[in-house]
Amino acid sequence: MNLHDLPSSFDQYQDRIRHPLLRQRITSAAAAAALIKDGMTVGMSGFTRAGDAKAVPLALAEQARRAPLKITLMTGASLGGEVDRVLTEAGALARRMPFQTDPTLRAAINRGEVMFIDQHLSEPVEHLRAGQIAPIDIAVIEAVAITDSGAIVPTTSVGNNASFAILADKVIVEINLAHSLALEGLHDIFIPKRRPQREPMPLMTARDRIGTSAIMIPPEKIAAIVITDQRDSCSTVLEPDADTAAIAAHLVAFFEREVAAGRLGENLLPLQAGIGNIANAVMCGFIDSPFQHLTMYSEVLQDSTFDLFDAGKLDFASGSSITLSSRRSEQVLGDIGRYKDRLVLRPQEVSNHPELVRRLGIIAINTALEADIYGNVNSTHVGGTHMMNGIGGSGDFARNASLAVFATKSVAKGGKVSSIVPMVSHVDHNEHDVDIIVTEIGLADLRGLAPRERAPVIIEHCVAEPYRQMLRDYVAAANQRGGHTPHLLEHAFDWHVRYAATGSMLPE
Amino acid sequence: MNLHDLPSSFDQYQDRIRHPLLRQRITSAAAAAALIKDGMTVGMSGFTRAGDAKAVPLALAEQARRAPLKITLMTGASLGGEVDRVLTEAGALARRMPFQTDPTLRAAINRGEVMFIDQHLSEPVEHLRAGQIAPIDIAVIEAVAITDSGAIVPTTSVGNNASFAILADKVIVEINLAHSLALEGLHDIFIPKRRPQREPMPLMTARDRIGTSAIMIPPEKIAAIVITDQRDSCSTVLEPDADTAAIAAHLVAFFEREVAAGRLGENLLPLQAGIGNIANAVMCGFIDSPFQHLTMYSEVLQDSTFDLFDAGKLDFASGSSITLSSRRSEQVLGDIGRYKDRLVLRPQEVSNHPELVRRLGIIAINTALEADIYGNVNSTHVGGTHMMNGIGGSGDFARNASLAVFATKSVAKGGKVSSIVPMVSHVDHNEHDVDIIVTEIGLADLRGLAPRERAPVIIEHCVAEPYRQMLRDYVAAANQRGGHTPHLLEHAFDWHVRYAATGSMLPE
Repeated sequence: MNLHDLPSSFDQYQDRIRHPLLRQRITSAAAAAALIKDGMTVGMSGFTRAGDAKAVPLALAEQARRAPLKITLMTGASLGGEVDRVLTEAGALARRMPFQTDPTLRAAINRGEVMFIDQHLSEPVEHLRAGQIAPIDIAVIEAVAITDSGAIVPTTSVGNNASFAILADKVIVEINLAHSLALEGLHDIFIPKRRPQREPMPLMTARDRIGTSAIMIPPEKIAAIVITDQRDSCSTVLEPDADTAAIAAHLVAFFEREVAAGRLGENLLPLQAGIGNIANAVMCGFIDSPFQHLTMYSEVLQDSTFDLFDAGKLDFASGSSITLSSRRSEQVLGDIGRYKDRLVLRPQEVSNHPELVRRLGIIAINTALEADIYGNVNSTHVGGTHMMNGIGGSGDFARNASLAVFATKSVAKGGKVSSIVPMVSHVDHNEHDVDIIVTEIGLADLRGLAPRERAPVIIEHCVAEPYRQMLRDYVAAANQRGGHTPHLLEHAFDWHVRYAATGSMLPE
Repeated sequence: MNLHDLPSSFDQYQDRIRHPLLRQRITSAAAAAALIKDGMTVGMSGFTRAGDAKAVPLALAEQARRAPLKITLMTGASLGGEVDRVLTEAGALARRMPFQTDPTLRAAINRGEVMFIDQHLSEPVEHLRAGQIAPIDIAVIEAVAITDSGAIVPTTSVGNNASFAILADKVIVEINLAHSLALEGLHDIFIPKRRPQREPMPLMTARDRIGTSAIMIPPEKIAAIVITDQRDSCSTVLEPDADTAAIAAHLVAFFEREVAAGRLGENLLPLQAGIGNIANAVMCGFIDSPFQHLTMYSEVLQDSTFDLFDAGKLDFASGSSITLSSRRSEQVLGDIGRYKDRLVLRPQEVSNHPELVRRLGIIAINTALEADIYGNVNSTHVGGTHMMNGIGGSGDFARNASLAVFATKSVAKGGKVSSIVPMVSHVDHNEHDVDIIVTEIGLADLRGLAPRERAPVIIEHCVAEPYRQMLRDYVAAANQRGGHTPHLLEHAFDWHVRYAATGSMLPE
């Protein structure tokens, strides 16, 4: 739908824009984007491809191609479509936070052209609220509707939308007709007060609703409304393969042992799963498990959430976004009423909040890029230097979870890279925050173990040959030097250096 | 006081042991220690030398010298006197958690003889409650008194005492006559419920009292009571020197700028300070600052807390222990009534709880062993391998603080070691959790900066020559390779390797 030249009244949108005066603010994406000036900080909706602003960012890129313009772009998490690529190519991004997954933007970050501030996803709005980063000038928020009081009803994600809208001077709303009005009522908007006036967050189970169903801001802050009609980008999540299914099976067997030992009930504790194929496969592994009445308190709800609903395994899911594959998207979002009373979408500050993660005792399942023999995890930096996506919510969850699981295939690049190395080349999660490491080979339970005990458990349970023997040799040599956490610092990164030089961690 | 042969009734202790039947349980330290058997997990009181059990652990060491006996010893944090040394020398320690500072024990840990599980101090009892580590068999708790209902009144620390007593099968109480009964009423014992039944912690300011003044357990669990009469070991904290005073001055100037910018009020936010000379000096720096009505929400209350009270700067201090130098000990503890209405001691799970640290917006000031050019901090491992003390509470605070400050002198070992290195040899706190690095040279404000921006700020503000130029050269070379966080992995630890080989990080 191209709406570049619109009449001044838009009665056909009265179900979507119920505040009558606000219907006067409908304009084109280009006119809305023109509100964004060089040097501004812009907060856009969008969390793991879901609920992202779709028209204004592309119009902004167009504008930047005509006259140089650089902004700081904050979002919830990753955007869909080509927004980050197009903005990068237009040279419009000076700074970007807190997460991204776009190959073009990633390359610009790694060339040092875009300053990327990788943040725990619960924290960006905390930094904004405290004035510790530049304030939001304009928010661009995708919405299903604007209520008669001017409140904004988000679409398939909440992310940082509410705080962006509250903290911004001006708000641009994209009303996306491709999202069903049935999404209304799905959201629960709760914003912690600025410190030191903050109160406890009154949430005690994944299903508790503690806020409002829409984002309440003074309607006069809504400076422009743009009508769009485009679905979210679909996730590229793959069906489980033999390796990810094996990872899932190891975890299910582990949880069965925990239940048998009386440490968990058969409904476990609320589950969080990171984005991607491995976490999705792990969640799918619960379909054929003996566990019942599961709940999720997570950030992204992927295909597996709805597979678990359909299998009768999952009672309730709380998240900050719904991100589905093309297989699942139409089926779920086209019939959301079927799931709506078992779902809630929250601000990422709430879905990921340390207070709640600790209180609920979440079981956090996230993906490691690499892990080391002592249980430190690198989630972000290829070769210790090049940013992949960002830490995302993994730190919010792993630090405060009752059980922090990190999953990875034991090797990558056809066996030329071992995911378990002597020392990780970048630390996102250290040994204190990693309880379980699982690969397709097996599972290492690190709880209560000292570093010298962790190493053999990880090596013998999680590592493929020939890396297993190579790590045994490393540990034997390092132990000769002594220490609580023995290492040979001059050889700790030999595998990474060899890979950079030869394309393989294996000796030639 | 040696009480090896006691009568069966002890009316002289009725002010200290008010539950009449419990007075029958008074026995010798040796008899109490005999309750501890080989293989047991023992939870002892003691947090940064304060309120530690003093007689039973020494009797236990004696017992271990007669017949082999190995235990898992859990405490709050470090113990005073020679307890860890004597137990180590007696071969009585198989496992030790969550923190220690004893040179003999440290050496045994680094030889791999004692398995040390270094933990965030808010977490050990969470792991116990969830059954994730071996349960406590016996707790040994120092007390001022036992109430008429059998509740235990702790002394100068709370630490993990309450949960140890609640979770143990049996409890040994050491009534220490050297502690004044005036300590009664100082403590606030609140224990979170086991998950998933947990409720919000109803604490909104440092001064809130949310629990009971003593540890409530069934009196029949008290299996033995030992009478002692020995003061806590004094801290060895030093008066500020030129370097630590300079660090304090940089921080005070920074906070003045924050107040001027409207980001903080003149009472700042609740302050946490780690243990040791640097943190103590920083807190002393507030005495001559313009700030008023400060509060502390910390773990250890050191000399500086009472200096700030006496200077009229500090309104209230919450901690888990009071650890004083010989200069201050008698003066403060001998006249605790003077401070009592401005003090509270809490379980370390409460003093360090992520939920509360985040809610209160704590300003966390901790000490780095080394930091790197991107703001990662090593708090624990000398040369990346050898444990110094443990992570303590620094992770609980830094992760969730509104401002996470790490302080260190720019060099150590007479300039042969730089505290700022290309890459830290062990990561306790990564770039996400480090807002400010301060040395005697200056202060680096890292908020909102990407790694490539952090490096020059740290190098130019915090590093002494010739290391400053050496780091500039490293960054220039690393930037040629590209990446979000540029490094030369094959040279990242050159300085550490050189120090190990030559005794200096400087090239020969």
